[in-house]
Amino acid sequence: MANTSWKNFFLSLIDYKTEKYVIAKNKKVGVLFRVFQLSVLAYIIGWVFLTKKGYQERDDAIQSSVITKLKGVALTNATDSGVHLWGAEDYVIPPQGERVFFIITNFIETPNQRLGYCAESTRVLDGHCRQNEDCTEGEAVISGNGIKSGRCLNSTGTCEIYGWCPIEKRHKPKEAILRKAENFTVFIKNFIRFPKFQFSKSNILETNDDMYLKKCRYNETQHPYCPIFRLGDLVHWAGHSFQDMALLGGSIGVLIQWKCDLDKDYSKCNPQYSFTRLDVKSNNSITSGYNFRYARYYKDGAGQTYRTLFKVYGIRIDIMVTGEAGKFNIIPTIVNIGSGLALMGAGVFFCDMILLYLMEKSTFYRESKFETTKYESARWKHKSRELKPLPEDGTPNRQDVWKGKFIDLSRNNSEVSS
Amino acid sequence: MANTSWKNFFLSLIDYKTEKYVIAKNKKVGVLFRVFQLSVLAYIIGWVFLTKKGYQERDDAIQSSVITKLKGVALTNATDSGVHLWGAEDYVIPPQGERVFFIITNFIETPNQRLGYCAESTRVLDGHCRQNEDCTEGEAVISGNGIKSGRCLNSTGTCEIYGWCPIEKRHKPKEAILRKAENFTVFIKNFIRFPKFQFSKSNILETNDDMYLKKCRYNETQHPYCPIFRLGDLVHWAGHSFQDMALLGGSIGVLIQWKCDLDKDYSKCNPQYSFTRLDVKSNNSITSGYNFRYARYYKDGAGQTYRTLFKVYGIRIDIMVTGEAGKFNIIPTIVNIGSGLALMGAGVFFCDMILLYLMEKSTFYRESKFETTKYESARWKHKSRELKPLPEDGTPNRQDVWKGKFIDLSRNNSEVSS
Amino acid sequence: MANTSWKNFFLSLIDYKTEKYVIAKNKKVGVLFRVFQLSVLAYIIGWVFLTKKGYQERDDAIQSSVITKLKGVALTNATDSGVHLWGAEDYVIPPQGERVFFIITNFIETPNQRLGYCAESTRVLDGHCRQNEDCTEGEAVISGNGIKSGRCLNSTGTCEIYGWCPIEKRHKPKEAILRKAENFTVFIKNFIRFPKFQFSKSNILETNDDMYLKKCRYNETQHPYCPIFRLGDLVHWAGHSFQDMALLGGSIGVLIQWKCDLDKDYSKCNPQYSFTRLDVKSNNSITSGYNFRYARYYKDGAGQTYRTLFKVYGIRIDIMVTGEAGKFNIIPTIVNIGSGLALMGAGVFFCDMILLYLMEKSTFYRESKFETTKYESARWKHKSRELKPLPEDGTPNRQDVWKGKFIDLSRNNSEVSS
Repeated sequence: MANTSWKNFFLSLIDYKTEKYVIAKNKKVGVLFRVFQLSVLAYIIGWVFLTKKGYQERDDAIQSSVITKLKGVALTNATDSGVHLWGAEDYVIPPQGERVFFIITNFIETPNQRLGYCAESTRVLDGHCRQNEDCTEGEAVISGNGIKSGRCLNSTGTCEIYGWCPIEKRHKPKEAILRKAENFTVFIKNFIRFPKFQFSKSNILETNDDMYLKKCRYNETQHPYCPIFRLGDLVHWAGHSFQDMALLGGSIGVLIQWKCDLDKDYSKCNPQYSFTRLDVKSNNSITSGYNFRYARYYKDGAGQTYRTLFKVYGIRIDIMVTGEAGKFNIIPTIVNIGSGLALMGAGVFFCDMILLYLMEKSTFYRESKFETTKYESARWKHKSRELKPLPEDGTPNRQDVWKGKFIDLSRNNSEVSS
Repeated sequence: MANTSWKNFFLSLIDYKTEKYVIAKNKKVGVLFRVFQLSVLAYIIGWVFLTKKGYQERDDAIQSSVITKLKGVALTNATDSGVHLWGAEDYVIPPQGERVFFIITNFIETPNQRLGYCAESTRVLDGHCRQNEDCTEGEAVISGNGIKSGRCLNSTGTCEIYGWCPIEKRHKPKEAILRKAENFTVFIKNFIRFPKFQFSKSNILETNDDMYLKKCRYNETQHPYCPIFRLGDLVHWAGHSFQDMALLGGSIGVLIQWKCDLDKDYSKCNPQYSFTRLDVKSNNSITSGYNFRYARYYKDGAGQTYRTLFKVYGIRIDIMVTGEAGKFNIIPTIVNIGSGLALMGAGVFFCDMILLYLMEKSTFYRESKFETTKYESARWKHKSRELKPLPEDGTPNRQDVWKGKFIDLSRNNSEVSS
Repeated sequence: MANTSWKNFFLSLIDYKTEKYVIAKNKKVGVLFRVFQLSVLAYIIGWVFLTKKGYQERDDAIQSSVITKLKGVALTNATDSGVHLWGAEDYVIPPQGERVFFIITNFIETPNQRLGYCAESTRVLDGHCRQNEDCTEGEAVISGNGIKSGRCLNSTGTCEIYGWCPIEKRHKPKEAILRKAENFTVFIKNFIRFPKFQFSKSNILETNDDMYLKKCRYNETQHPYCPIFRLGDLVHWAGHSFQDMALLGGSIGVLIQWKCDLDKDYSKCNPQYSFTRLDVKSNNSITSGYNFRYARYYKDGAGQTYRTLFKVYGIRIDIMVTGEAGKFNIIPTIVNIGSGLALMGAGVFFCDMILLYLMEKSTFYRESKFETTKYESARWKHKSRELKPLPEDGTPNRQDVWKGKFIDLSRNNSEVSS
């Protein structure tokens, strides 16, 4: 007994159950449904797979390493500082060729500063005073150049301070001293790696020609793989004028984008360069421009320290590397196919709604589609496929169950009971 | 013929096939199923779409550029180094306003170092010796200050080394010399861009008031868009004391988070600042604190090089910008809807299980739901809708096929054969 | 009336509708379908959930902070520069322990440069000349050392320039002066944070043993959590020879990978270190190697500036931290389950195709599965379940509708009309 029931159970497991369908010969809804199916198919193939590459696994956590090198010399002759020849070791800060670097385009040099007492600058608000009491001894001047000594100097109307004297002249420069920096060139070496796919590449043209990189300049159409940029061009492509930016400084972003389809050839994965100005250009001196100070320290014969203070304005270049790689992977393919199939289900739902409730013959279709089964008739006992024997009929009957209707087809008694 | 069959094929293509359903008038399972459907709907709408914004495409590969500027001066008077006025050009390393910068809060200055022979520090383990043989000539002292000369000096119990003499005194500082750095302020300019959506923004309040940024300080409730922070506040908000950290140094992270819903207004996308201590605070001198050394080189009148060695302790500020933007996109919407619909299918599966196997009338429902078709009767030949003519009956019959049962309804012979 | 219809509507809402299935007792297709279902289940459980951890939400926007510290001294004695003892304050650029740092392994020192007139180097192409007219006065030498004065010097065949003289000798170095840098050690402190999960960790072994970190060296099997690396080992693990790289410099990437399953214990989330050479090794001097220049400025007794120019070659170490964390989340679990379920639907589709069109009894199964309903008979009026009374028959009939076939089972007239 138990063996038979287990055997039946396993046999029933490998029966193939398929859903029963009603063919409603309604051309309108049929065409609508086919149109819907074709749209879903077109959407899946055209948009999800071809355009958005939905069959690919994506990696956007790009690892990037950037090395830069500037070339160019310029001679300056400023009133305060005299003649100076600027090379990359002077105007690039920091000098070691980093991803973010600053090029001096303008500066205010204050040489021979020594610690001592002098008047605070008139341009510093907190330094203004009318009498000695306005200058609290030992208090640092807010946004100032030193510590108040306690005396108010009438000659300038500012506090006397202890600091590096002579203090820096706080005037806005009128022209960019190192304006020739426009012609300097920067060589950007970029090495990227997509960790998910173990894919590495660099942006330098793989060429046997040694001289190519010595002479070429980046050009979007003719030399797209020569990452040597003239600074003036960089700023120009960002939509600004180098000379304007050089006066008070600014910030330029060089965006290197790697959009790679790794199902294609290695040589097809190449960077796109775009340039944008990062700082907000405004008349507000707090927010616009870019400057900072540094000092060079010296000792004189007596061992006393003195220094040269530099307030440098310039253009900061920020190289930002982004990238996204895609490679065929079975999982996103299946997820997207699965979603598309589920979407077909939505189409069935909507077409059913139209067929069953909105068309003129909807009641008919509803009755075709739905069959009611109700376990309520007291007339017959439901005992797995047995029919209550009818009195007159001696011939064996078979009870056929379909959708809750039982046809009791004995010879004499043809009744349909529900 | 062929035309007709093609025509029939195309006509059959646009027939609308809909699944046949059995209505089981079982309120319990019906209510259970509706409850399940409502839960799935509530989950999709409430959680996936409203809370997790599942209708949006997300971009978390934020591009960020940070420019910092510190302000503040402090006067120090140390035994070894004398009086020194510290400005931003002195205490910020590097000075060019980078994303990661270091502020000196304490230092050990060793001036006038010249190359020569002197005793290694007693605090260096590898420098200890008892006799000359312990000091191998030409060998560098591990974690030391120079190269062993081969002599062991009895006065100190350490090897004589060739290096920059006098060597640095390796004592742990007792107080932070530049403790007034607590009052310095840092102005953090952050420019971000979400490349997927071509969306850019900066964290500076767009205001016409020039004086606002000169005077304001960051305050989470009153001035959330003034990114000027007092250093002491920064450390305090990270949960630590500035003076404690200033002694041996440490590392603070400033996290700027941009969570932007780009379906909303541009002005709603604003950064959130949070502060955390990055280094592990412990008594282990190897891992705690933050210090490094640098040197300033000078040449005397004879052209001989001498230097001042600085061992600086301080607080390193690491500005980490993260962000995530979301914008409505049809694909994630559809993927999530699709998954929800597939989930409905799971509900059908479970309710069917309950109806067909767990309820008391389950056998009845099973028989209503499943119809068996079995191609095994030898009695009739299956030839597309034709019935084998029965001997007696001359009237034309129609063979009706339904689920494998054939009703042969000739006048005399009413038989149901399966 | 209205109440009744609303009541009926609500009652109909909680009827449970289940699809009708045809059981095709076809073992072959049944087994095929079960095999397909098992494969989909195995794929979902084995691949999507266990291998790819599809039940987890992922965060790959790792926040990282790196602090480095180098130790080691070396003595050099070069012809031009004399004896020099190099400590970390000298050979690490920048000195503050950043994520990207450069170690000097070779250098060309040009001391005592003063502004003046001298001959351009013969190795600079643009400096070559035959007569004065080749040297345009005031023009900067491309890739050169100064500004052309207008004179062509016969002794060298190059233009006379105004620049820092004596100019640097542009010879390729033959051996790495600071080759002992191979024994220097770098201590890499890495702090990471996964913002989505608010999870933080550092890569330093949490130990009470102070002496452990003073003495250990990184070893992949024995000391995996001691992030102190000997430079020579770093380069060796990257697959290159330190001495080869030290000659002209190069670039090494240290990849720190954090792959964390946050459903597991905190102590299981640990970094993996791997090492790779970043620059392309080639004979091309433009692209290979790594070097830059910086200068130290001095003033003599007369206040005249002179400088020492350093062209340094070395190894740049780029510490790149990547990571990915996963933690159980209900949404990706459901999305992946949903996709799997939809995939089952594909299985049904294919098995149906086989059953209905490819097997030998396919016509039979097609007719079992699909029922046609056609609203075209003029014989009877469709009025919700009423039969047109036939003339002779006085007994009440019931019109049974199934799949568009109507059995009019009056006693006398057994007709099947479609």
